[in-house]
Order: sequence, then C-alpha cells, then structure tokens
Amino acid sequence: MGKKLEELRRLFGVVIDIDSSAGVLEWDQQTYMPPGGAQGRAMQIATLSRLAHEHLVAEEMGAALEAAESEVKALDPNSDEVRLVRKARRDFDKARKVPSEWVAEFRRMTALAHPVWEKAREKADFAYFQGPLEQIVELRRDYVDFFAPYDHVYDPLLDDFEPGMKTADVKAVFDELRSEQVALVREIVDRGTPVDDSVVRQKFDEQRQWDFGVEVAKALGFDFQRGRQDRSVHPFTSGFGTGDVRITTRFDPTFLNTALFGTMHEAGHAMYEQGINREFDRTPLGTASSLAVHESQSRMWENLVGRSQAFWVAFYPRLQEVFADQLGSVNLDDFYRAINKVERSLIRVEADEATYNLHIMLRFELEIAMMEGTLDIADLPDAWNAKFEEFLGVVPPDDAQGVLQDIHWSGGMLGYFPTYALGNLVACQLWAKIAEDIPDLDRRIAKGEFEDLLGWLRENVHRHGSKFEPVELLTVVTGTGLTAQPYLRYLREKFGDIYNL
Amino acid sequence: MGKKLEELRRLFGVVIDIDSSAGVLEWDQQTYMPPGGAQGRAMQIATLSRLAHEHLVAEEMGAALEAAESEVKALDPNSDEVRLVRKARRDFDKARKVPSEWVAEFRRMTALAHPVWEKAREKADFAYFQGPLEQIVELRRDYVDFFAPYDHVYDPLLDDFEPGMKTADVKAVFDELRSEQVALVREIVDRGTPVDDSVVRQKFDEQRQWDFGVEVAKALGFDFQRGRQDRSVHPFTSGFGTGDVRITTRFDPTFLNTALFGTMHEAGHAMYEQGINREFDRTPLGTASSLAVHESQSRMWENLVGRSQAFWVAFYPRLQEVFADQLGSVNLDDFYRAINKVERSLIRVEADEATYNLHIMLRFELEIAMMEGTLDIADLPDAWNAKFEEFLGVVPPDDAQGVLQDIHWSGGMLGYFPTYALGNLVACQLWAKIAEDIPDLDRRIAKGEFEDLLGWLRENVHRHGSKFEPVELLTVVTGTGLTAQPYLRYLREKFGDIYNL
Repeated sequence: MGKKLEELRRLFGVVIDIDSSAGVLEWDQQTYMPPGGAQGRAMQIATLSRLAHEHLVAEEMGAALEAAESEVKALDPNSDEVRLVRKARRDFDKARKVPSEWVAEFRRMTALAHPVWEKAREKADFAYFQGPLEQIVELRRDYVDFFAPYDHVYDPLLDDFEPGMKTADVKAVFDELRSEQVALVREIVDRGTPVDDSVVRQKFDEQRQWDFGVEVAKALGFDFQRGRQDRSVHPFTSGFGTGDVRITTRFDPTFLNTALFGTMHEAGHAMYEQGINREFDRTPLGTASSLAVHESQSRMWENLVGRSQAFWVAFYPRLQEVFADQLGSVNLDDFYRAINKVERSLIRVEADEATYNLHIMLRFELEIAMMEGTLDIADLPDAWNAKFEEFLGVVPPDDAQGVLQDIHWSGGMLGYFPTYALGNLVACQLWAKIAEDIPDLDRRIAKGEFEDLLGWLRENVHRHGSKFEPVELLTVVTGTGLTAQPYLRYLREKFGDIYNL
Repeated sequence: MGKKLEELRRLFGVVIDIDSSAGVLEWDQQTYMPPGGAQGRAMQIATLSRLAHEHLVAEEMGAALEAAESEVKALDPNSDEVRLVRKARRDFDKARKVPSEWVAEFRRMTALAHPVWEKAREKADFAYFQGPLEQIVELRRDYVDFFAPYDHVYDPLLDDFEPGMKTADVKAVFDELRSEQVALVREIVDRGTPVDDSVVRQKFDEQRQWDFGVEVAKALGFDFQRGRQDRSVHPFTSGFGTGDVRITTRFDPTFLNTALFGTMHEAGHAMYEQGINREFDRTPLGTASSLAVHESQSRMWENLVGRSQAFWVAFYPRLQEVFADQLGSVNLDDFYRAINKVERSLIRVEADEATYNLHIMLRFELEIAMMEGTLDIADLPDAWNAKFEEFLGVVPPDDAQGVLQDIHWSGGMLGYFPTYALGNLVACQLWAKIAEDIPDLDRRIAKGEFEDLLGWLRENVHRHGSKFEPVELLTVVTGTGLTAQPYLRYLREKFGDIYNL
C-alpha cells in the first residue's frame, strides 16, 4: 500500500473509531443504560458525532484524499485501493455539505427522542412523541437543503441508505409491486384455504425461546465469539468492526414467531457484517454496500431459509423437543403453514411475507408527505390509520400497535423504510442465482447444513463490504440490476402452494 | 455564571463527554464485549483517549482557563466557580506535561492487556501476562519522567489518584500502621477465641445471592434508576455522570461473602458518585475528591455498616429466609463472628478488616520496587509470594490466587493500591464524626434505616465532588487532617470483642 493511501486510511481510522464508539453507546442505550443516563448519553453521542464529522471534513482529510487519488490513479479500477479511495471521496463530499453543528444537534435530539418514543409507545399515546418528531422532521428538512438542488425532497435521505437510488426509482418499483401484491393478498383472503396459526400462539417459556434462538443462530453461522445477543425493545443489529457484531431480540410469551424469526433476521444482518473482509476494518469499505443489500441478508435468513419447509425438516424435531407440550402433537405441515399465515396484521416486523411490503409502502408514502410538508405531524396518527385501512384493511386499536411501533423515526431515520422492501427483492434475486450455483440447496438446508449457503454469500456479497454500490454488486453477481420478478415469482409460488390457489 | 467561565465549562464538557464515552467502552469491555472485539476496542479507546487529551491541552483551553481565572478572581475562594477553575487548572497543567501520543499508546496497551490478564488469571500462569506488564511498567516510567523533577519516582503516580499526597507520607502512615496491625493479627491468632466461618462457606444459589444483594443495595440507598448492577471478573464501579453509575459483582457459589460484601462495597462507591452535585456534571468538579475518599465510602458501607452487628439485626432474619437451609438454625451472633473471621487469607477483596491493609502494604512495596527498577517483572511472582509469607504467613498456591488476582496492573493503575488502605483510615475518621452528629446511628442501622447516614454523607462528602482536595475535605468535615487513630481504635475495639482479647 502506498504512503498516501496509508495516510488516508489512518485519518479514516480515527473517524471510524469515533463513529463505532458512538455505536457502542447507542447499543448500550437500547440495552442496558438506566433511565437516568439519558441526558448524559445524549451529550456524549452528540459530542462524538460532531468530532467524527469534524475529522471527516477536515482540510487534512481533503488533502490526504487528493493525494491518495493521484497515487492510485494507475491501479485497476476494481482493486481494493481504488475502491477505498472512491468510497472515501463519496463519504467526504457528502459530509462536507453538512455542518458539524447540525450533526451534533441531530444526534443529541435523536438520542433524547429515543426514551420519549419508548415512553410514548409504552403509554400507547402519540402525543408524547409529537414534539420530538416535529423537531426531527424539521432537522431533516434542514439536512435536505444542504444537498439542494435535488429532484425530490426525499432523494438526499434515500441516498444515505441506498447510494445512487432516487425517489422516482422507488416509486416505480413500488407501483409495479403494489398492484401485484394487493391482488395476491386479496386472492389469498378471498379464495385461499384458511390457515390456522393457533399452534404458534400458545404460551412459550422465554428462556427456552432464548435458548432455541441461540441454537439456531449458531447453526446458521452467527459467530458468538465475534458477537452476542441481548434483549431490547426493538430488535436491531449493531456492528463495531468485524470482530464485534451484536444482535438483539425481544420476546412475546404467547407468540413464538416474534423472537424466533427476529433472531434469524438479526443473525442474517450480523453474519453480513461478520463476513466483511477484515482488511476493511477501520476503512470506508468496512460497511454494508447499502441497507437494501443488508436487508436482503436478514430477510433471506429469516424467510427464504427460516420460513421454508426444508429448514423445518431439519429443526422441527428439535423445536418439538423444546416445546413438547405445545408442539409435540402438531405435524410439520401444519406448523409450516402456521408460520406462513398471511393476514392483514398490524406489526411490520411480524408481518408475513405476502403483506410485508404493504407495511413499507404506507410508511414510504407518509414519510414523503411529512417531508413535502403536506402532512402535519399532529395528523400523523390519523393518516397512519387511514392508510393502514386502505392498504391492509385493518385499523390499529392504538398508537403503540400503529404509528409508534417502529424505532426509526425516533432515530431520525427517514428514508430508511423503503430499503426493507427493496431488500426483499434483492434477497429473491440473489436466491435465484444461489439456486443455480448450489443445485441441492434445499436438500442441504433440510439437513441443517448452511456452510455452502453462507460460503456463497461470504464470497459473493459479504466480503466486499461497500466496495461495490448495490446495483453494481447485483449486476456483478446476478448479471442484472434490481428486478422485482424473482420476488413476485417466489411469492406466487410459495403462497399459491400454501393456500391452494 | 460569567461568560468566560461558561466557555471554560463548554470546553471541559467536551473533554468529559469523550472521557465518559471511553468509560462506557471500558465498562462494556469488562461486562459484555465478545472476545473478538478486543482489538477494535483497544483502537476505539486509544483514539478517544487521545482526543480527550488533545482537547484538554489545546491552546484554546489554556486561553479559556486564563480568562476564567481573571473573571472569578474577586469571588469567594470557596465558591463553586473558583473551585471549578482551580480544579480545571490542575487538570490542565498535569495533562500539558504528557504528550497525547503517550496517552493513546498507554490506553491502547492497557486495553489489550486486559484480556491477556484475564487469560493468565484463568490459566493461573503469570508468564502470559509478563510481557504486557513489562510494557506497562515501561510506559509508566516514561510517564513519571514527564513530571521530573520529583522527590520519589512513585510520587507522580500517587498524585493522579491522591492529589497532594507524597510517597513519603504514605510510607510514614504505613510504618505506623504496620507494627500495630501485625501485632493485632498475631494477638488474634495466638490468643483469641477461634472463629468458625463454615456457615458462610456452604452452597448458596447464585440467583438468590444476586436478589439479596440487590435488595440490600436498594435499602442502603443505591438508586437503580441512575445505575445498574452486572457481573464481571473483577468487581468495579464506573460512573458516567451522576445519572448513570454502574456497579458489578461476581459470585462464589460456595462462599457467601464474595458477592454480598462486594455489592455493598461497590454500592458505597456508586452512592458517592450518585450523590455528587448534579450541577457539577460535565465539569472538572464532577468526580470524587480522591480515591482514598472514594474508598472510604465503599469500605464504610461494606465494613462499618455491612459487617456490623447492628446491620445484621435488621437484615439477618431476611437472609435466613432466603437461605433457610443454610442459615435457618444459625444464630445471629455466630453469623456475625463468621463474617468477621480474621485469617491469613489470599485474596485482598475478600480479606477481613484486620488483615486487609497488609495486603495493600505488600503491593505498595512491590510497586515501588518495580518503579525503582530494583525488581524485574520476571521475578514478580516470587517476590509476591515471599512478601506474602512475610506479611501474612501464607504462600499462594498459584498465580491466580497470588500476583494475578487484581485487575489494576493490567489497567496500568500503579499508585492506586495505597488509596485502599488510606480509605480505611478516612472511613473511620469520618465515622467518628458521624457518631457524634447522629448519636443513635446504631439503633437506626439496626432498624434498617440509612437515610440519615446517607444524608450526612451526601451533605458533607458526596455533593462536593472534587471541590475540595482530600486533606482539605477531611479538615473541613472532621477538624483535622488524615489520622490513623480512629481506625486503629475501631479495629482494636471490634476484634478485641469478637476474639475476647
């Protein structure tokens, strides 16, 4: 490695140390921090964020970047070196548009908003959270202005999570999906053979749920030497380099799916980060390509693996052993149908695969309305409920099961939700390619063997970190850019079968 | 508050945010961090430490300090404002002598040394830890040089923990103590009625130990809304401002004292930090006056309260309820004698009050020898064992129960141990004054009432933070500087009674 690139890496290493330290503080905030820590934690996070930003946008960094750019000019454009410099340039240029003071204020505000959201959710009362959310949306509008001109006010937000993606692109994909997905759900409800999921809605001891989840996560390939699992209000994955990637889960004592599929979902995220080339630690390449790619990994392990018949051929006997009273006399086929029940449900993270994207689309539309200023925050609960009825045919009984269910807005993460739906598409697109490369994939999963699958993902996706932008990565791996077709095919096939359509 | 002081506070707030963030990272390192996180964590902590140091010694800080000094010149020398500026000056001047690079290297090295020490301890083999310790002592010698000239090579280390105290002062106090304490222990062993502690050496369920410890900590006044308890290899207290002060404990399934008195000890530390004036958060005054004062609080709650007969009048019935099989038929007096058994034991943190300071004195002498260069690190285990036999009449069977038992050296904390012995003295000196101010203290403790005691400590010690230096604080509160007499009187009285001397 050249001297100039070395210097760029050194400077970036400091930025990433600070950022990942703030990450640890945020993880702690959502897992173990006592209530009294909220104010101090907000200050710590704000200070670290400002410092990270100051170091990122420093003149010294700009100079190091230019020097590195000219040093690597003659190298292979696909080399790690060139890619590292390119990613550093993108991060630097974006950060330069934003004042450090905005970053500190945004982080301070969102750190303070988190416990308020938790309280509002606990009380099922949006009114508590309205003020903080108004401030957050206001700050997000200021943020967007730093990137003017733009095609759409939502574009700069989206680009933070999905490099290169435009609001118009998402709208186009969603328009294509919506009609198909609404039609599928209607068909299932109107014409399908009803599915009974009462077997997963019994009492399940929390410690046993925990133990079984850990057993599954280990079997999939989550490395507990380089990670751990804890409890939190909202499940999430948080990585501080490839050596320390943590997941959280939550439990519903009367619903098996919550923790079980939640753990597989987060393990999917975490295995992605654990699989990034270790050489990329403390460099701009040591992150996911995008959040849609990240979500493709979590959704793949949760759904394409975890909700498949093959997976339960391997794991159902063990689950029956753990919950003998509840599942001892339930056959595999009934269990498989139960965990795949399609319904017009309230909670996104527990939604079935057929309705999931509808939950996303309504959030996307609400976020756009908030950012465009056509929706007052005070009116958000009503708008949520109205759109919920329109998209899913049900109205949440309270705000906790409605507009307050997700953590994202309290963290200021507007622009994030669409990546969930895109992630489902990416997962299926990758899966089609994997099925070609590993012809007996189903048979292996049915034996509880995931090494080849994980190996494929490591080789083709994980290890690259953010060396490739998402569409570029998809094209390299599957031969085409983002397409919804594999996803729609998968849904029709799977649910056509379960519901005898 | 004046504008200049405001600016000084703002600048210091940033330093403290970074420092307390590093504190959270260190807490996490010792409680939840997976093994794979060690390298990354070392870099994070090193980076944060360097940044905190850079911000502390910045020209901007020096200018703000001078401006604030002239702004507060006319104010009462005992006002918070003047004291804040004085403490800031001390912190600034000391930090200016040390290069930021040394700080980063020291913190990186000690962060890496921690898991090595844990492993060495697990394997009971000092050889694993020898290399890191050599590097740490080397770094500490470099550190001391920054403060040359000094009377003694150990002085600059001691001054970090005990502002204003000299090695010669400690030697003088220890010389006075040693003969008296050795004589007392000999008298107990040679002439005393033997004490049987088998009742505390039975099997005690860990979860019940945990629950009882939490119950006691709450009763004493530890605020779980502004703190928490976790498990760690070595118990410690870590505060990140008055709103978030955490303790850890560890369990011995066959020895009740370990967790029980460990929890009271750490709760004592934590209540000190929880009791600091909240206005001092994020200022140089928001810390303890010194480590001896800190230790006086932990030892007071652990011993003067927790190992008193009065305390167990209140709590023994409850403990008997929790451990009915083990203690149901043991009377209070036998239990009281068991928890106060004097013995030539191996582990400092579990040592009785009569021998405790001997554990400290031997460490103090070894640290001085290491710093003076008269003891090779390779010879440390032998020197430890020889001195142990000399001071306590026993030889540790292995390094885990000997030279590797304490975390301090892996954290580079040389100069720290003497403060433990001094803390015992301070505790007794304060206690004598408390007994005057709260004449029915014993009766209150016997009813499980600690509000007045905690209130007295809050008012006279806690709230001041580091507004007063330790000897100054002692003088204000008790009328005299540090004296060993109340401590020696307390020991003779208590153990004379228990051992019928």
